[in-house]
Amino acid sequence: AEGEVLDLNDPYANDPERHPALIVYIQKPFNAETPVALLGDRFLTSNELFFVRNHLPVPKVDPKNYKLEVSLEGKDPIYFTLEELQTKFPIYEVTATIQCAGNRRREMNQSKEVKGIAWQGGAISNATWTGPKLRDVLLYAGIPESEVDKTIHHIQFEGLDADMEKSYGASIPAQKVLNPSSEVILAFKMNGETLPLDHGYPIRAVVPGTVGARSVKWLHKVIASAQESPSFWQHKDYKGFGPYTDWHNIDYTQVPAIQELPVQSLITSPPPSAKRVVLDADGLLPIHGYAWSGGGRGIVRVDVSLDDGKTWEPATIHPNQQTYGKVWAWTQWEHRFKVPEGVKEVDLVVKAVDSSYNTQPESWGPVWNVRGVLANAWYKIHLKVDEE
Amino acid sequence: AEGEVLDLNDPYANDPERHPALIVYIQKPFNAETPVALLGDRFLTSNELFFVRNHLPVPKVDPKNYKLEVSLEGKDPIYFTLEELQTKFPIYEVTATIQCAGNRRREMNQSKEVKGIAWQGGAISNATWTGPKLRDVLLYAGIPESEVDKTIHHIQFEGLDADMEKSYGASIPAQKVLNPSSEVILAFKMNGETLPLDHGYPIRAVVPGTVGARSVKWLHKVIASAQESPSFWQHKDYKGFGPYTDWHNIDYTQVPAIQELPVQSLITSPPPSAKRVVLDADGLLPIHGYAWSGGGRGIVRVDVSLDDGKTWEPATIHPNQQTYGKVWAWTQWEHRFKVPEGVKEVDLVVKAVDSSYNTQPESWGPVWNVRGVLANAWYKIHLKVDEE
Ligand SMILES: [Mo]
Ligand SMILES: [Mo]
Repeated sequence: AEGEVLDLNDPYANDPERHPALIVYIQKPFNAETPVALLGDRFLTSNELFFVRNHLPVPKVDPKNYKLEVSLEGKDPIYFTLEELQTKFPIYEVTATIQCAGNRRREMNQSKEVKGIAWQGGAISNATWTGPKLRDVLLYAGIPESEVDKTIHHIQFEGLDADMEKSYGASIPAQKVLNPSSEVILAFKMNGETLPLDHGYPIRAVVPGTVGARSVKWLHKVIASAQESPSFWQHKDYKGFGPYTDWHNIDYTQVPAIQELPVQSLITSPPPSAKRVVLDADGLLPIHGYAWSGGGRGIVRVDVSLDDGKTWEPATIHPNQQTYGKVWAWTQWEHRFKVPEGVKEVDLVVKAVDSSYNTQPESWGPVWNVRGVLANAWYKIHLKVDEE
Repeated sequence: AEGEVLDLNDPYANDPERHPALIVYIQKPFNAETPVALLGDRFLTSNELFFVRNHLPVPKVDPKNYKLEVSLEGKDPIYFTLEELQTKFPIYEVTATIQCAGNRRREMNQSKEVKGIAWQGGAISNATWTGPKLRDVLLYAGIPESEVDKTIHHIQFEGLDADMEKSYGASIPAQKVLNPSSEVILAFKMNGETLPLDHGYPIRAVVPGTVGARSVKWLHKVIASAQESPSFWQHKDYKGFGPYTDWHNIDYTQVPAIQELPVQSLITSPPPSAKRVVLDADGLLPIHGYAWSGGGRGIVRVDVSLDDGKTWEPATIHPNQQTYGKVWAWTQWEHRFKVPEGVKEVDLVVKAVDSSYNTQPESWGPVWNVRGVLANAWYKIHLKVDEE
């Protein structure tokens, strides 16, 4: 804006303006979730409302000077300009839900204290991403496909987001990228628009079915390696411990880095803040929400309850048109309960079943973990019923 | 045996002799599980002790006349002799656990009645299978790979096991077979020996990571199709309903056929029949067992409890050497509990976590289903502790 004076000493000076509806937990680095009430009624989340999980300042990138460095570890890299990435390879559109490892941490924390941002159920969003397949780029760069699972085990990513000590990094299993049906892409568009600053302009990795932390934004290096990314976020964060691990006995080498996420679901309407619900014109109690699972697994059933899980009913799921094994996007669902006569309060519960018939855990204790990740116990909300 | 007279009117006359240790539920067709106590202490189950789930009589096959018919639905088939299948293609060894959809049905049935064989925890076994990749055979037969997920959606199998009305059949998603890293094989050996009569001699499909019902034995037809197998077992059985579905409101078209199975685990020692346990020389309570998940997902953690799940400890898992995403075999685990002083009875529990961080359900009610399949709630056993 005219007359605006940027603080040149503020590493966050390049951070963009954000939509005022986002629920902000940290300003610097920016961490904000989508209000749950805005998630459940549209299949694609708008760019402005898509949750933002930044680990570092938003970097300033001149698209004319941008280069993506691609290498087999220890060998000379080759470089791609933004224009090359946009024009040299077949371009794909992939609709994929991205979820933060810490989504729903607030509920886990309520059962017993954990460390991290107290995300409600809105650290998850769904968009259509456009770009070349990373597989095509790596093969063009001469990465030998025949070495996957032999000398090449991981594809490392490095972002341009950095502070004095480190830049953001993460890695994923090599076969997730290099198998011929891989849908890992280098996105330069999000919902048909130029990738927004907060979502990795000009290029981000989109790793569908995998924890958000691996879809590295402001991507500038890709390394095919025998090893995982050396980053803090690969080795010391985003790991799923047992309920017996605490900050005194934690051993990060004992558990692998999180990749695929488990089955998840939420009631988005009524939203988590609701205390009362009004029956609809037919005297029924309407609810809707999202369900999703990692690894390309679709949702085969969503079960809902109004008596805290004692009895269940099947929700209606909106067909997800994606192909078996590549169901990267969430599934929206809805239901209308007949509230038994005389019942003035309800304990609504939702649990989803994915295409491998995995289900969500019933309670928090057995999946509680010190880092507060992988929070996917049954979602519950207690409501007073107004017959209106 | 000399002088033996076969009843030529008995369709089961070709059924082989079986190992006396197998726990037999039905003789004709033969259905028997491996005693759980024999499962947990060896990685490979021996051919004689591998559980047997037959739907029909064991067919008599002359290997000289055996032919596998392969077709694109509606087109002329081509045929392969047994020798061609054994010599024309690269041969692979795949170590894969096969589990019946109804494993552990007995426990689900104890929570509320279901229909089917009351399998304990032994309708699961692990073997090394040898044969060509079905992908190679289909491509050789001219099945167009480019039509997968376009006009070809399913690969149908038909077995030689039949009665007057029907033969056994099942199907799997086409990409499970035709993706280039597929490990679906046509096995002619099991643990290095000729495939036994009960396990599909001379050829069976082995579909790793998928419910046992799709690894069709005595295979004689493979059809690439737009449709699933028309068989009873694809459409009316082996489906995962919600707890609200009973025999009065069941609608088989409402849920998909089971393919990948969810995460599973069991304590194999002490076995399910144990009532007491003796502490070891160190005064500790030793347990061991198996854990497994479908879809090639490995086991990242096994949590065990001696107080009915109030507190947990991590079991030691024996490293499974299979590649990420292709962990077809189970993982064996062990633990030794320090029993708190004065405690004379324990409620042992095990639950496993797979590489997508899915976990087993806590109780039977929410996963109960009328067909008694997908029984993977926490395994529990109550024991008296003998200190000597
Ligand atoms: Mo995250
Ligand atoms: Mo089965």
